[in-house]
Amino acid sequence: MDKGRFTLPGETGMEEVIADLVERWGVDAVRDSDGTSLSQDILDMGLQIYSTLCLVREDNEWAKQHPQYRQQIYLMSAPLIVTSKVKTIDIMADFFADQFVPNTDVDIKKYWQVVNRTTGEIVPSAHWSYAEGIVTLEQAEQFHKYTVSFLAYQIWEPVSMYNHITNNWTEEHRLPLDVRYSEAQEHVLKVLKDWLAKHPKTDIVRFTTFFYNFDLIFNKEGKEKQVNWFGYLSCVSPLALDQFEQAYGYRLTAEDFVDQGRYNTPFKNPTPRYLDWMEFNQKFIAGYAKQCVDMVHDFGKKAIMFFGDHWAGTEPYGKYFSEIGLDAVVGAAGDGVTTRMIADIPIKDTEARFYPYFFPDVFFEGGDPVGESMPIWIKCRRALMRKSVGRMGYGGYLSLAYQFPDFIDHVTEIATQFKGIHANAEGTQPYKASFKVAILNTWGYIRSWQTHQVAHSLWNQRCYSYIGALESLAGLPFDIEFISFDDIRQHGIDPSIGVIINAGDVHTSWSGGDHWSDPKVVSSIREWVHQGGGFIGIGDPTAYEHQGVLFQLADILGVQKEMGFTASVNKPKVTPVKEHFITEDLEDDIDYGEGMTMIYQAEAGAEVLDVHHNSCNLAVNSFGQGRGVYIAGLPYSIQNTRLLSRAIFWAAHQEEQLYSWFSVNPNVECHAYPETGRYCAVNNTSETQKTTILMENDLRLELELNGMESVWMDMNM
Amino acid sequence: MDKGRFTLPGETGMEEVIADLVERWGVDAVRDSDGTSLSQDILDMGLQIYSTLCLVREDNEWAKQHPQYRQQIYLMSAPLIVTSKVKTIDIMADFFADQFVPNTDVDIKKYWQVVNRTTGEIVPSAHWSYAEGIVTLEQAEQFHKYTVSFLAYQIWEPVSMYNHITNNWTEEHRLPLDVRYSEAQEHVLKVLKDWLAKHPKTDIVRFTTFFYNFDLIFNKEGKEKQVNWFGYLSCVSPLALDQFEQAYGYRLTAEDFVDQGRYNTPFKNPTPRYLDWMEFNQKFIAGYAKQCVDMVHDFGKKAIMFFGDHWAGTEPYGKYFSEIGLDAVVGAAGDGVTTRMIADIPIKDTEARFYPYFFPDVFFEGGDPVGESMPIWIKCRRALMRKSVGRMGYGGYLSLAYQFPDFIDHVTEIATQFKGIHANAEGTQPYKASFKVAILNTWGYIRSWQTHQVAHSLWNQRCYSYIGALESLAGLPFDIEFISFDDIRQHGIDPSIGVIINAGDVHTSWSGGDHWSDPKVVSSIREWVHQGGGFIGIGDPTAYEHQGVLFQLADILGVQKEMGFTASVNKPKVTPVKEHFITEDLEDDIDYGEGMTMIYQAEAGAEVLDVHHNSCNLAVNSFGQGRGVYIAGLPYSIQNTRLLSRAIFWAAHQEEQLYSWFSVNPNVECHAYPETGRYCAVNNTSETQKTTILMENDLRLELELNGMESVWMDMNM
Repeated sequence: MDKGRFTLPGETGMEEVIADLVERWGVDAVRDSDGTSLSQDILDMGLQIYSTLCLVREDNEWAKQHPQYRQQIYLMSAPLIVTSKVKTIDIMADFFADQFVPNTDVDIKKYWQVVNRTTGEIVPSAHWSYAEGIVTLEQAEQFHKYTVSFLAYQIWEPVSMYNHITNNWTEEHRLPLDVRYSEAQEHVLKVLKDWLAKHPKTDIVRFTTFFYNFDLIFNKEGKEKQVNWFGYLSCVSPLALDQFEQAYGYRLTAEDFVDQGRYNTPFKNPTPRYLDWMEFNQKFIAGYAKQCVDMVHDFGKKAIMFFGDHWAGTEPYGKYFSEIGLDAVVGAAGDGVTTRMIADIPIKDTEARFYPYFFPDVFFEGGDPVGESMPIWIKCRRALMRKSVGRMGYGGYLSLAYQFPDFIDHVTEIATQFKGIHANAEGTQPYKASFKVAILNTWGYIRSWQTHQVAHSLWNQRCYSYIGALESLAGLPFDIEFISFDDIRQHGIDPSIGVIINAGDVHTSWSGGDHWSDPKVVSSIREWVHQGGGFIGIGDPTAYEHQGVLFQLADILGVQKEMGFTASVNKPKVTPVKEHFITEDLEDDIDYGEGMTMIYQAEAGAEVLDVHHNSCNLAVNSFGQGRGVYIAGLPYSIQNTRLLSRAIFWAAHQEEQLYSWFSVNPNVECHAYPETGRYCAVNNTSETQKTTILMENDLRLELELNGMESVWMDMNM
Repeated sequence: MDKGRFTLPGETGMEEVIADLVERWGVDAVRDSDGTSLSQDILDMGLQIYSTLCLVREDNEWAKQHPQYRQQIYLMSAPLIVTSKVKTIDIMADFFADQFVPNTDVDIKKYWQVVNRTTGEIVPSAHWSYAEGIVTLEQAEQFHKYTVSFLAYQIWEPVSMYNHITNNWTEEHRLPLDVRYSEAQEHVLKVLKDWLAKHPKTDIVRFTTFFYNFDLIFNKEGKEKQVNWFGYLSCVSPLALDQFEQAYGYRLTAEDFVDQGRYNTPFKNPTPRYLDWMEFNQKFIAGYAKQCVDMVHDFGKKAIMFFGDHWAGTEPYGKYFSEIGLDAVVGAAGDGVTTRMIADIPIKDTEARFYPYFFPDVFFEGGDPVGESMPIWIKCRRALMRKSVGRMGYGGYLSLAYQFPDFIDHVTEIATQFKGIHANAEGTQPYKASFKVAILNTWGYIRSWQTHQVAHSLWNQRCYSYIGALESLAGLPFDIEFISFDDIRQHGIDPSIGVIINAGDVHTSWSGGDHWSDPKVVSSIREWVHQGGGFIGIGDPTAYEHQGVLFQLADILGVQKEMGFTASVNKPKVTPVKEHFITEDLEDDIDYGEGMTMIYQAEAGAEVLDVHHNSCNLAVNSFGQGRGVYIAGLPYSIQNTRLLSRAIFWAAHQEEQLYSWFSVNPNVECHAYPETGRYCAVNNTSETQKTTILMENDLRLELELNGMESVWMDMNM
């Protein structure tokens, strides 16, 4: 196979296997992983050498000698209901003693908070005491609920901890250093310099990542308790709090971090204080990461970052990211959404590390790594067809993966297809609709392809009915933009946008919560739709209880949701419209995921396309020159992808555009590259599919594809 | 049959039928209905004569001559989205022109309001004008939403309108008089006096009802648009507004009535202003109704009121009701809930008017009035067994009903069973649990048996999953009390209460909304449960987003609901407990009605009894000495009734009490009257049922009952 664009996880002792895969997979680079190293023989094979480096856990001895520079975190204890007999809180009762230890080095009366969660009041510090892990409430209200927010040292770097537990490692626990402290900063730079000097063979330093891991908190039993891939909890320290106060003129407290136990999940509309905290850390992290990257460059090496692990504050779609000066970003691609999350980053080069990771949770005797990989690759491939990453790779133990010959063959096929995209597209843009599709939520651009997730590619019951729409979009022929309510307030709606999608549960940042009570937001969108824009709502779009209604743009969507306050009003009995452009290709009942209840026709002219148990699951409406579509939920599936595609073209009043480079059979998708004259038909199922491809100018092609097959063809043939 | 306790709707021309039914049904009283009259022959049959009288529509000529005294109402127009071309609102576009006409006699700039529903601001009166049904916005924000709240005259008394339309009457439309105006008041008293003088044969004046109908608003097409059986909309008038201002020191405006289009549904926690308005009208209505009742008494007749129609402000469970001095209340009983709503009124005597009403919507050729009546009677009978009404009756056209001989036989059976309850109970109390069950919501006692309804016995999708629990309770052996959050704040929890039930959708008055952020409420309930109380939550109990959680008493209920803000936190995988006291008699899957999603185990010790799609539908928990039960919804069914019964006894820690006068087969219920030594087994199905009745002291009785049969037995046999 052509050599190039493939990063292999190497491992000492696997030299012959590597040589074999250089041929079979066209590997041109080799990397180490957490837990593996590369032998001199591997380093001498003439491949590019990627070396993973996690600076904050690199020098464990120094960290042990400087425990004051361990990373910290604010945690909220399990709540206590106070009775005459029970007045003490074991603050670590919910947490993993191997991961955290309360920080009692600080003045705990200043840094910790005991909160009466019944009243929301902070308990005066004189009313509680602390000793040996226990907070005792000296004065408390009977049958009120109390929590303790306490600062804790992180005594086990969480990614290392995760890997350690997953692989039953026995090595010493790694401590994470907090580079906010200048002595730690200087030491880490020195560690980097020494490391660079000692790794002359390394071509590319793969930072995994920089300094602060996303929020990963384990419970008493050492199992994952909560994960917020977008969190900034680990950035906190007394020094950071002081510096923040200097910079912003006010001081954050424990409550700003524990946030009533919600820990500033991105599902919430963020507080201004939290936005300040994010920016404060982004600035610092970009600045200090730049020093590291500059040093790598000084050694004549490239610096890339892993978009994951300690990526807090780097924010590839954030304001400060470009300042870091990275050469590339590599990320884990578990589906189309995460593939696009990597591919769309504004940077020179990108790389996808595909799943499964070569770890024993998948690669065990009797395991089915091909079965694990297949649906992931199908999803990733759709996304790559729209916007490819520069390189592909894997991670983990090659020695494990090599025990599965069918998996080795399977990756050969993936590599062939991956490289085929580059060979045919030649870096040009695929054919796409004449208009952009915008995803509207509170976060906008900074959370591009990062909505409705607690962690990337992780199924969640509150998410899948919405992230499914993004998964569909990842491989559809649209330019996608993520916009915020602030964007609309400040700049209006870009005329290149043809359709806006608002998707999410009520009150979340994804649907938008109280932004929908802002007259500027609703009137701007109304005006834009009235002049011809398309607006698609999924789940609880535009939902905020204001002036007697929940869906603020029911006039556009055509439907409203009954929460009980207008239960007295008779709801129109609707007969679903049987034939519509949007539902033309449906073969089965639509899967709305979690779905909705009591959605009713709110506008006389709205057409309802699907009703279940008196609730409108799918509806369309006209508003001035524009159109609205309501969908109760949209988990990812081939049928839902076609449905969304049709909904978008219909909402944009551009139905005819659907039929360019269109596969009549929805199981097949077609991607065309006009500049290279090549197009590809892709079978997204594991079964043989027949289809007709509608090209342009009424040309059509009958085609049969094997399961998972993708076929490149010439437009002029 | 024994004569007594039966009120028959008479009709001129049906004299022989009446004579027949006096024998077959044991009729002792005859009444007229809206649309029927009683001939002299009927009046002379020796029966008690009930005469319906609706004072506010009695003298239509006088009403026509005094249009200024027609009842009024505040209506909110359909909303308008303003564009450059569209700036006018047809205020009556949503309403029935035969029912309402805008009141332009007043200074409309003072009494009407144009509201910007995008900002919530009232539009300055200089910015709009009105002519011929159209409000023109002279100044308005583009793409904002506007409504007009306008005062309208009611030009068709709504119950009469409903009857008229249902029966295709052709008679003149009746106008409703507003007795708030003293001239109207005096005239109505004169009408009453004349009427009384002219009806010497009348024994009982059946007011239907007094003065102001519940909210019944028809749409443009003359179909029901909305109905709020609990509304006070018709009480409004410029005079009422002035008198209110004098009494309360502030003035109500249009917005206080239209309430963003929600019209103060009881599903909302009421505003203090609305509570004042209710009380203001109750005081006036009780006072003026008393004058009417006194006059009836002066004529040597009895005065009873129909609990329905124009009952606004009479509030049989309100503070001022007893002042009216009525002899009895008669109400429409469409199920167990409405039966108890009548039966439990604190008054000397009560009467149930059973469904179906003898109207052509049920009694038409090919209709099935017996099929209509059967399930209603089964529900009503359960309730009567717990607390009977004094009398039964029907309404409408006897001539219609008499065309259905099987219905005549069916009512013979109902009358036999109804009178049997009185004969066996002899006015004594049935056996019941040693503790009370309290329904906790925002309204408390005044809405006894009036929760979760838009109109009595009317199915509603937002209601049935909750009212079902009340329907079950209507026939279960518990003393039921309706308590409010204010009761708990002011008086704590009565020690006679063993179990509190909180049921309803989030944010509604039925679950309680922001009352759950009151520390006094939650700590009082926690303390009471901790000392042994039982707390049952249905749907969204204790739900209010406060301090990071939705269900404020998750610590008692054992479960919490995920709205998205803690989606990052892993939810425990639970294996349902297979055997539990509560689920012992289940044969089928439980029907939770609308149900809930994403309910998860919140307390480590909670036991989950039923899970569907990762959501806990049924769970139990311990809290101190007390217990909590969570149920996702509880539509009425025999199985759910048994489930609730068991849940209550379990929550109260009184499981053994279940087995006194207990039918092993849940299709049969048993009601015992210890003071008379009689007990009754009732088959609540139309099929034959075998069961074992567990009496007291380990006695048991094997029994077989025909479909619908009820059998009275002696305890000492």
